[in-house]
Amino acid sequence: MKLEFNLPGKLIAALLLAFVLGGCQVFTETQSRSEVMGTGDLGLIIERASGSVLVINTSRHEVLGRIDGLGDLSHASVVYSRDARYGYVFGRDGGLTKVDLLSQSVVDRVIQSGNSIGGAISQDGRYVAVSNYEPGGVKVFDSQTLELVAEIPATYTSGEGQVGQSKTVGLVDAPGNLFVFSLFEAGEIWILDMSDDSAEVTRFEAGESPYDALITPDGRYYIAGLFGEDGLSLLDLWNPAQGVTEILPGYGKGEQKLPVYKMPHLEGWAIADGRAFVPAVGHHQVLVADMNDWSLVDRIPVQGQPVFVMASPDNRQIWVSFAHPNNDVVQVIDSQTRDIVRTLEPGSAVLHMEFTPRGEEVWVSARDSNRVTVYNTRTLEPVATINAEKPSGIFFTSRAHALGL
Amino acid sequence: MKLEFNLPGKLIAALLLAFVLGGCQVFTETQSRSEVMGTGDLGLIIERASGSVLVINTSRHEVLGRIDGLGDLSHASVVYSRDARYGYVFGRDGGLTKVDLLSQSVVDRVIQSGNSIGGAISQDGRYVAVSNYEPGGVKVFDSQTLELVAEIPATYTSGEGQVGQSKTVGLVDAPGNLFVFSLFEAGEIWILDMSDDSAEVTRFEAGESPYDALITPDGRYYIAGLFGEDGLSLLDLWNPAQGVTEILPGYGKGEQKLPVYKMPHLEGWAIADGRAFVPAVGHHQVLVADMNDWSLVDRIPVQGQPVFVMASPDNRQIWVSFAHPNNDVVQVIDSQTRDIVRTLEPGSAVLHMEFTPRGEEVWVSARDSNRVTVYNTRTLEPVATINAEKPSGIFFTSRAHALGL
Repeated sequence: MKLEFNLPGKLIAALLLAFVLGGCQVFTETQSRSEVMGTGDLGLIIERASGSVLVINTSRHEVLGRIDGLGDLSHASVVYSRDARYGYVFGRDGGLTKVDLLSQSVVDRVIQSGNSIGGAISQDGRYVAVSNYEPGGVKVFDSQTLELVAEIPATYTSGEGQVGQSKTVGLVDAPGNLFVFSLFEAGEIWILDMSDDSAEVTRFEAGESPYDALITPDGRYYIAGLFGEDGLSLLDLWNPAQGVTEILPGYGKGEQKLPVYKMPHLEGWAIADGRAFVPAVGHHQVLVADMNDWSLVDRIPVQGQPVFVMASPDNRQIWVSFAHPNNDVVQVIDSQTRDIVRTLEPGSAVLHMEFTPRGEEVWVSARDSNRVTVYNTRTLEPVATINAEKPSGIFFTSRAHALGL
Repeated sequence: MKLEFNLPGKLIAALLLAFVLGGCQVFTETQSRSEVMGTGDLGLIIERASGSVLVINTSRHEVLGRIDGLGDLSHASVVYSRDARYGYVFGRDGGLTKVDLLSQSVVDRVIQSGNSIGGAISQDGRYVAVSNYEPGGVKVFDSQTLELVAEIPATYTSGEGQVGQSKTVGLVDAPGNLFVFSLFEAGEIWILDMSDDSAEVTRFEAGESPYDALITPDGRYYIAGLFGEDGLSLLDLWNPAQGVTEILPGYGKGEQKLPVYKMPHLEGWAIADGRAFVPAVGHHQVLVADMNDWSLVDRIPVQGQPVFVMASPDNRQIWVSFAHPNNDVVQVIDSQTRDIVRTLEPGSAVLHMEFTPRGEEVWVSARDSNRVTVYNTRTLEPVATINAEKPSGIFFTSRAHALGL
């Protein structure tokens, strides 16, 4: 190849300069859009009113960028791919959005139902499952492509003999590539086995109207809260043949029945030192249960109806958030003495808390103050604040490595 | 600024071409060397004989690259930065090497002592501490720059009144930005507080000649193995004023005293379901202790002297590796029935095992077979093998998020 240039030197020089500078700029921009960086200290903050999420860095207390266009995020949650690069955001409107934390952009998005309530990612990271209210049931997607892999309609026959699809709640992943979820109308707990292509379902009778559930951090006990009766349904996944048993028989007894959306979150239970710290229903108390026999061993008075009761990663502190109208404070309980050691005021309408993976800090969202406050867990003093539009849920990428999150 | 070019057009064109192509090539190369990818599913495999490490991807069962020049890795271990991008490799020759998993290269390297035995990273990720045999003591470095931040000589006065530096062992991080370690000659356990600049040390009398230690996953109990006596030293970090207590009083009793380098690793203890699964010393047994009162509740016969006894992340299985000459197999124990459910043959001279963070697979290194075998923990069948030169330790980036690892 022979190249001939007959342009005047100055023009060439200008072109050269423009090209090199321009080229570098474009390159730099592309690079900053998909930056080379570790993903272990990243996370997402849901901005519930604007359908957006913030990508944040927990080491630098920084916002890396905002991702828009995620639909109705009024009750949104997130799980992560096993490389901790992609977040799967479950929106209220049935939207399942895969976002890339490195490029801070939407990779893929499907509207998979009319109304959904959360999801989970399988132990091996291959499947993302979504729990639906409308039309009910569970859908399972390929985590790479978001192609539909399995559909579990969750049909049941009502007392009047009518067949319908049940709302599903409390969907979690469990060891052995299982998903476990509860059927609100059917009063059942189902195990979906995704360890091979058969997508086999095993059904268990549970209590009446399960509204939410949790799985213990080791993936052994699945516990569903019941709207229709007092007490909780427990399934021991190490011994499923024993079926569902009832625990904490008085649990759910309040002064009056709460509407289902005011019931405390069960993901918010704290498991520390062989004890479960549990939000009371309709009482200003945190309940303490012995996990060996599930007996109630203590009631800790707090300043409002608890919503989230979360243990720090070292189990040394229990952080409690509250329901409206007492939701402008967070209380910190010493898990050993069970005393309240501090009452913090992170802002107006505190919605969620997330500990950094090794627990040196905790991020707290205050929706109506449009900010997230970062506290040092040792000093209990604020160390940073992050501006966010009506922030709700906070989800760090370390969840990629935890069972049941 | 005015630019003047008086070079002939052809020369300029050639320069332009060279610059642009060259520039782009360099840029591309740099970019492919530092790939844009998540770091949640990466890890390092120590190649002990060649002073190198392999960077691996656990999702694809792939080697991404080899990093050379790390010195004597005959007893090496790794901790990770909180962004899960950088590994800190502790070599036997006192070398502390910071490697970048994204560019697969050495970022920085210091020879900080004559002989070291491992290290830890602080809860907040700011400090890397190294445990030294020669000249003894602990050194603390800035994790960004590897600049020396604090030096703890670990001096003690011997029975003959001579002052010396003690070898330090069992160095771990603990909540509150603490480091905890044991002094072999001094028979003490020290807490180093790195929560402020004072680097304050608190000393505790322990048993005779601690040779290794562990901290429980919640960072509460520090347990040191003793070479000089039977039993173990326990420090409850929630109640340090109670001092060190002795647990498992018969522990260490074998048919004969083992040399210290043949004593089982204490990091290899499994904590599952309120029970500690512990390698017996000088016996072909795994001991089971109740963590409430540290009483011995069972002895599980196995095929050799156990070295590593590790619980799967769901606590459902206990995997056991063995000392020479019975070190070509791994045994898998059901943690509930305490039966051996499978005896696997991953190759010759099995040295280490590492579970993927959510436990669907486990990687096992066989030094003399020059390979690492990946097993599915559900089927207990091999799913992949990785070629490696005399592989020993395997360390996944999810350790960035765990206390005491």
